Amino acid sequence: MKNDPDLRIIELGLILPPSPKPAGVYRPVLVVGQFLYVSGQGPVMSDGLLMKGKVGAELGKDEGKLAARQVGLTMLSTIKTHFGELKKIKRLVKVLGMVNCTSDFDQQPAVINGFSELMAEVFGEENGIGVRSAVGMTLPSNIPVEVEAMFELYEEQ
Amino acid sequence: MKNDPDLRIIELGLILPPSPKPAGVYRPVLVVGQFLYVSGQGPVMSDGLLMKGKVGAELGKDEGKLAARQVGLTMLSTIKTHFGELKKIKRLVKVLGMVNCTSDFDQQPAVINGFSELMAEVFGEENGIGVRSAVGMTLPSNIPVEVEAMFELYEEQ
Amino acid sequence: MKNDPDLRIIELGLILPPSPKPAGVYRPVLVVGQFLYVSGQGPVMSDGLLMKGKVGAELGKDEGKLAARQVGLTMLSTIKTHFGELKKIKRLVKVLGMVNCTSDFDQQPAVINGFSELMAEVFGEENGIGVRSAVGMTLPSNIPVEVEAMFELYEEQ
Repeated sequence: MKNDPDLRIIELGLILPPSPKPAGVYRPVLVVGQFLYVSGQGPVMSDGLLMKGKVGAELGKDEGKLAARQVGLTMLSTIKTHFGELKKIKRLVKVLGMVNCTSDFDQQPAVINGFSELMAEVFGEENGIGVRSAVGMTLPSNIPVEVEAMFELYEEQ
Repeated sequence: MKNDPDLRIIELGLILPPSPKPAGVYRPVLVVGQFLYVSGQGPVMSDGLLMKGKVGAELGKDEGKLAARQVGLTMLSTIKTHFGELKKIKRLVKVLGMVNCTSDFDQQPAVINGFSELMAEVFGEENGIGVRSAVGMTLPSNIPVEVEAMFELYEEQ
Repeated sequence: MKNDPDLRIIELGLILPPSPKPAGVYRPVLVVGQFLYVSGQGPVMSDGLLMKGKVGAELGKDEGKLAARQVGLTMLSTIKTHFGELKKIKRLVKVLGMVNCTSDFDQQPAVINGFSELMAEVFGEENGIGVRSAVGMTLPSNIPVEVEAMFELYEEQ
């Protein structure tokens, strides 16, 4: 039986934040052929504000991981708002996980796991886990984590 | 009526810089199936030299945005030189916008808009705006901005 | 005659390190349609340990280039372990080359050439060289270089 990610969100009691407005000249999502591309998403909280802070300075590893989970919730909200039902998604293909961190912070994978574990919970282990890079850079609005992703869609019936 | 991006370049009076030689072991562009992949491009000026400087230090936000626009002009030059007519491009799919900035600079989207607004002018709002991440890192030759992109091509008739 | 990359590895006397275990919630490789996506790989040495150090600080440009070559060997090992024979690969499409460097280091392309030259040796100049960005950021476990890649596969007979 096919996993129903929209139902899983309810079962898991997840609260999706409001979908953010694009902060520049880009689309939140774009469908090309069998693929859904999602622009880099930040950690939007339930009140619509962004989490802030650099990991390794104001935020520790575990706070960074929570921010990465919030990025995942934001991405699910963006997809539902601008694309539609999650059950049209076949699988997560590729993730670029970006951590706003100090130059000596070296645990970006542990931070981005907050995003990846959420995707595995919602889409299942088989379809919710794809390839990934988890690296450190400097992010807009001083958000701690940003993730861009590419999903494969089910073929239209 | 289909937008003609090659004509738009003339109408807008855009001056494309010379297409840069690869600065390493890579191809400037590669076509695979229906997609045109473009290697990370820097801001080449009309005399063939690169703009330089870190945003947040030697360059401000607006100078960074001008550099991002110049990256767009460089990319158009690269595509015309190594691929061919822009009218074979159906749309911009995905952009990774990279800003060489200080660790406290937080307006990468405003900088990369310089690139994105140019693409919208040349290819139109519908086809020239795709998904995007705009983030900060350290760039080769101390260029202020680098952008890599993926375009969808029209199917061959 | 088709180049045989598995044979080339033997001819070149290359020693592949052990394939690393994923350091987080992701797959080392994923096949979707005609494409093989590979997660960001670090420089694993023959004893299974990671090379460490920031380029521009503990490591110079040439040491960084050697690390990038080792990333290439690690990626070949990962592909052989988790996907299968290299001869099923048609070509390298796209590389994101990430250098863990100081904020004033500006020769990321020279570093990533260590990876790209290896791919050209193993897959040939035509098929082993794709599009690329080579940029600087902060990397997990303080590894000097990380590379993610996308390959095109031959169609199944």
